[in-house]
Amino acid sequence: MRILGIDPGLTRCGFGAIDAGVSRSVGFVDVGVIRTPASDDLSRRLLAVRDELVSVMDRVNPDVVAIERVFAQHNVRSVMGTAQVAGIALMLAAERGIAVALHTPSEVKAAVTGYGRAEKKQVTEMVARILGLDELPKPADAADALALAICHAWKGSVESGTETAAQRAWRAALGGGRS
Amino acid sequence: MRILGIDPGLTRCGFGAIDAGVSRSVGFVDVGVIRTPASDDLSRRLLAVRDELVSVMDRVNPDVVAIERVFAQHNVRSVMGTAQVAGIALMLAAERGIAVALHTPSEVKAAVTGYGRAEKKQVTEMVARILGLDELPKPADAADALALAICHAWKGSVESGTETAAQRAWRAALGGGRS
Repeated sequence: MRILGIDPGLTRCGFGAIDAGVSRSVGFVDVGVIRTPASDDLSRRLLAVRDELVSVMDRVNPDVVAIERVFAQHNVRSVMGTAQVAGIALMLAAERGIAVALHTPSEVKAAVTGYGRAEKKQVTEMVARILGLDELPKPADAADALALAICHAWKGSVESGTETAAQRAWRAALGGGRS
Repeated sequence: MRILGIDPGLTRCGFGAIDAGVSRSVGFVDVGVIRTPASDDLSRRLLAVRDELVSVMDRVNPDVVAIERVFAQHNVRSVMGTAQVAGIALMLAAERGIAVALHTPSEVKAAVTGYGRAEKKQVTEMVARILGLDELPKPADAADALALAICHAWKGSVESGTETAAQRAWRAALGGGRS
């Protein structure tokens, strides 16, 4: 199952695709960030993001699109642009008949690090480790998009009260870093 | 100049078009509301609104699209869907090379009633009076969309400290109602 994660944003919209197989196996497919200049008109920025997301969806051909769930109370200054980009991403998925899932930032952090309030650096490091990437995905929006995709791949089989594969990997990573 | 006003919303998205001529003359062109059922998936609702807005823009062929500026602090429960629809409307306008203007609710109310905190009923009644409609446009979202278009038509020539045509009309309406 190919999963496209989208971390919506007007200045930076991260995207990251993985293939999810049996037994929580995940493979890297694609990652990047769509940027639009703050000097452009809002409507033109939204159109530019739309055009790039169409290219990404055409190239990646995902079975599922996982989008970060945006809350109105967070980052009031940027939340409207973020919601507008999320709306366009949702609409594009529906247009292609692709299933959509929304995950909260804390769900994503918990899925990949075992801790819902993990720092961005921890998320980025775990994403690189889980996917076996030689370099850390940058910027954070791109790493977050991959984390969203991993979250979606694993969330179905996460059971409360038991340690997840992510949590085990994160413990191992912490141990490795200290030895 | 043909102006299409859009009052964005997921449950009800109002639209209203007018032709604006010389000396503040405005003529009614079209009005309506796009509804999507709350039982549908968010992504499919956004796609349905997109399809309807495309039909409206094709039919009305506006020179300008005036959209209500959404604030994150208002109506937190519905604001995300409203922002998502607004984003799609903005993107569609940019796609067609149509100029976009954003007006706040208080700007719109002030333009058509002379009072920035006017009640919905006052806005609806003034819209009907200004456009010479036999019936009050319903629902309120449809009237608000027409008010947005009127606001855009008149705002450019509104001078601070002087009574606007809307204010004069509103005074006349109040006087007429009392006589």
